Amino acid sequence: MELNELGMRACEAKYQAAAVSEVKKNDVLKACAKALIEYNKDIISANDLDIKAAADNGISEGMQDRLRLNEKRIEAMAEGLEQIAQLSDPIGETIEEFDRPNGLHLKKVRVPLGVIGIIFESRPNVTADAFGLTFKTGNAVILKGGKEAINSNKAIVKILRQVLENEGLNPDILQLIEATDRETTVNFMKLKKYVDVLIPRGGAGLIRAVVENSNIPVIETGTGNCHVYIDKDADIEKAVPILINAKTQRISVCNAAESLVIHKDVAQDFLPILKKALDEKNVELRGDENVVRILGDSVIPATEEDYGTEYLDYILSMKTVDSVEEAIAHINKYNTHHSECIVTENNDTAEAFLNGVDAACVYVNASTRFTDGFEFGFGAEIGISTQKLHARGPMGLKELTSYKYKIYGNGQIRG
Amino acid sequence: MELNELGMRACEAKYQAAAVSEVKKNDVLKACAKALIEYNKDIISANDLDIKAAADNGISEGMQDRLRLNEKRIEAMAEGLEQIAQLSDPIGETIEEFDRPNGLHLKKVRVPLGVIGIIFESRPNVTADAFGLTFKTGNAVILKGGKEAINSNKAIVKILRQVLENEGLNPDILQLIEATDRETTVNFMKLKKYVDVLIPRGGAGLIRAVVENSNIPVIETGTGNCHVYIDKDADIEKAVPILINAKTQRISVCNAAESLVIHKDVAQDFLPILKKALDEKNVELRGDENVVRILGDSVIPATEEDYGTEYLDYILSMKTVDSVEEAIAHINKYNTHHSECIVTENNDTAEAFLNGVDAACVYVNASTRFTDGFEFGFGAEIGISTQKLHARGPMGLKELTSYKYKIYGNGQIRG
Repeated sequence: MELNELGMRACEAKYQAAAVSEVKKNDVLKACAKALIEYNKDIISANDLDIKAAADNGISEGMQDRLRLNEKRIEAMAEGLEQIAQLSDPIGETIEEFDRPNGLHLKKVRVPLGVIGIIFESRPNVTADAFGLTFKTGNAVILKGGKEAINSNKAIVKILRQVLENEGLNPDILQLIEATDRETTVNFMKLKKYVDVLIPRGGAGLIRAVVENSNIPVIETGTGNCHVYIDKDADIEKAVPILINAKTQRISVCNAAESLVIHKDVAQDFLPILKKALDEKNVELRGDENVVRILGDSVIPATEEDYGTEYLDYILSMKTVDSVEEAIAHINKYNTHHSECIVTENNDTAEAFLNGVDAACVYVNASTRFTDGFEFGFGAEIGISTQKLHARGPMGLKELTSYKYKIYGNGQIRG
Repeated sequence: MELNELGMRACEAKYQAAAVSEVKKNDVLKACAKALIEYNKDIISANDLDIKAAADNGISEGMQDRLRLNEKRIEAMAEGLEQIAQLSDPIGETIEEFDRPNGLHLKKVRVPLGVIGIIFESRPNVTADAFGLTFKTGNAVILKGGKEAINSNKAIVKILRQVLENEGLNPDILQLIEATDRETTVNFMKLKKYVDVLIPRGGAGLIRAVVENSNIPVIETGTGNCHVYIDKDADIEKAVPILINAKTQRISVCNAAESLVIHKDVAQDFLPILKKALDEKNVELRGDENVVRILGDSVIPATEEDYGTEYLDYILSMKTVDSVEEAIAHINKYNTHHSECIVTENNDTAEAFLNGVDAACVYVNASTRFTDGFEFGFGAEIGISTQKLHARGPMGLKELTSYKYKIYGNGQIRG
């Protein structure tokens, strides 16, 4: 189907999506969960085609694993939809309510964004997840998945659209772009006439392409060059587990730490202890002159590029500083405004760091790995915003909404 | 100065801007107000150059008037800064605060956006106004004004930067792009590395150019194709003044009405009454077949284009509908999501309209002209957002802020 046609259908469907009651939305989500399990064989055979094509195209085992769907993974998708059904519906909430001296009564009310576009990479589970979150918030959605997962995505979307239809709703509340060429993707980014917000989910390359090409308002998600700063007043008993957790608990995610910043006053004492723990996890170390001097030649000298790199690997850059101010300046120079941590027992230093560091989430004495919609108690997330407009940090249901002013008068005119 | 240099300076200044106390910000704003009046002769002689150039370039009297600054207008600019000093500072406010089962304590705190870019057209008073609002909210700002006002803008910015410096602050909190060529403007729209948000203020052409060219997140402001819908249950005593006020109280503004939608059941009775009132204001009428049939040949047949046009003139398009649903569909097809009004005494119809119409501000029995930061009680506004991301409707101080999460732990790591 042509993109404009898709856009028009989404625009038509969005008004219905916005008007579905909370009870009905939850029923539909539960029916979707059931249908995914009932028709899991359809999904698995479609997925087999994708896996076969991936193998034929020499795609890595790791990528193939991310692409693979089996009964258990489909159950997890279904469970995700069930969980979204349990969350309370933000739509219709009165955010503020006030009167003006002229008698006008104003209500600021939460409404859907309208049509949300989501561009994502290989994982086909995002399809059901993105539908669940956007549907629960009264939005219509147009999905553009990675071409490696096209058969899986088509099978999942077919099942979910069938449920929408069975439930008496417009199936165009959920649409998938089936063309997989690059030109279609770029044209999708320019569909401002029909799409209210575009959310890319994927690596730095995808995000950059969307930001450069889109004329639709974009919410940037994802890239995380996160730091752990160990202050001169740090408790080493806390510093070691926090650094190890932030760096190695899961290396491929955006809230993993990529860089250690450490105060010079404690570098001599703490670095050997930290190195021992990092060595156990086989983390490659790249440090500045001071670090190399203290830890010896097993540490690779760090370059400017290291400080700006999100490794997503068992690699850690290391930098010594003279003060918390220098730590803040270093982090603000190289970070991606995602998640940053200070380890310190000094409250004043902690507050200076919390205020000075420019990031969505700033931690005192806790791992950066907590930046996550579930960990924040939002119950779900569509991604982690690294921009400052609209939403920052983990984006749950509320962050998929906008607001409008309803204004009640009795004949007021402006003088 | 080169744009990159400007961007780097703004980025350096933004951290200081974010840390200035409320008391100090208010002192600086008052000092700026005083300085504008003290040095008004400098502004007026710079403005004379702009006015002379405008006259030489055959710019219309109306435009020249918008460009002109005199003692009284400079006083108004100063008063605007004084007023901003009176508003309470949103920065640092705790928006939400909650604990997690693992003991993490989260604070969602209001912070500045960072560096705001503002591109505006001829009125030089925007310069002081935009500085006041962005400074009060802890942001650094880069301004790009219209080339017609370049000398005036330079004079105003010079005075304000001098005050910043006298007050011991980094003057780069406020910067003006002095180059007036189109290429510089387009390059400014691509300064994502340094600018967090770009706000265009001006006509539809400017807004479109920014949306098409910018890779910085944009807040769209301004264009308003606003409707008044007169329902079958309308009170004509309210309908006439609301329509006349919305259409004619000030024709050149974005919250002025451009189109009348009227229920067929009352068209025969109400249209002649409305026409009489509109004739008194010399409003040209363009109506559909029904309107022409009822009101006769003095009404020009309306085209599709009429329904999509923001006239900003004494012209009104008119459309008859069979139901509130048809009114909503018509408005959602042609509007710019700015401000819409229903005149009705029926509460159910009013709620259907409030819920169904996709606009920032939807009115029952009141003029669309109230969509304004001052009228909403925000004390000031930087513009009226017509997009759904971040801010919708009048944007006051709060809408020039973002937030961050401060997270307090005692050694938590993720399992």
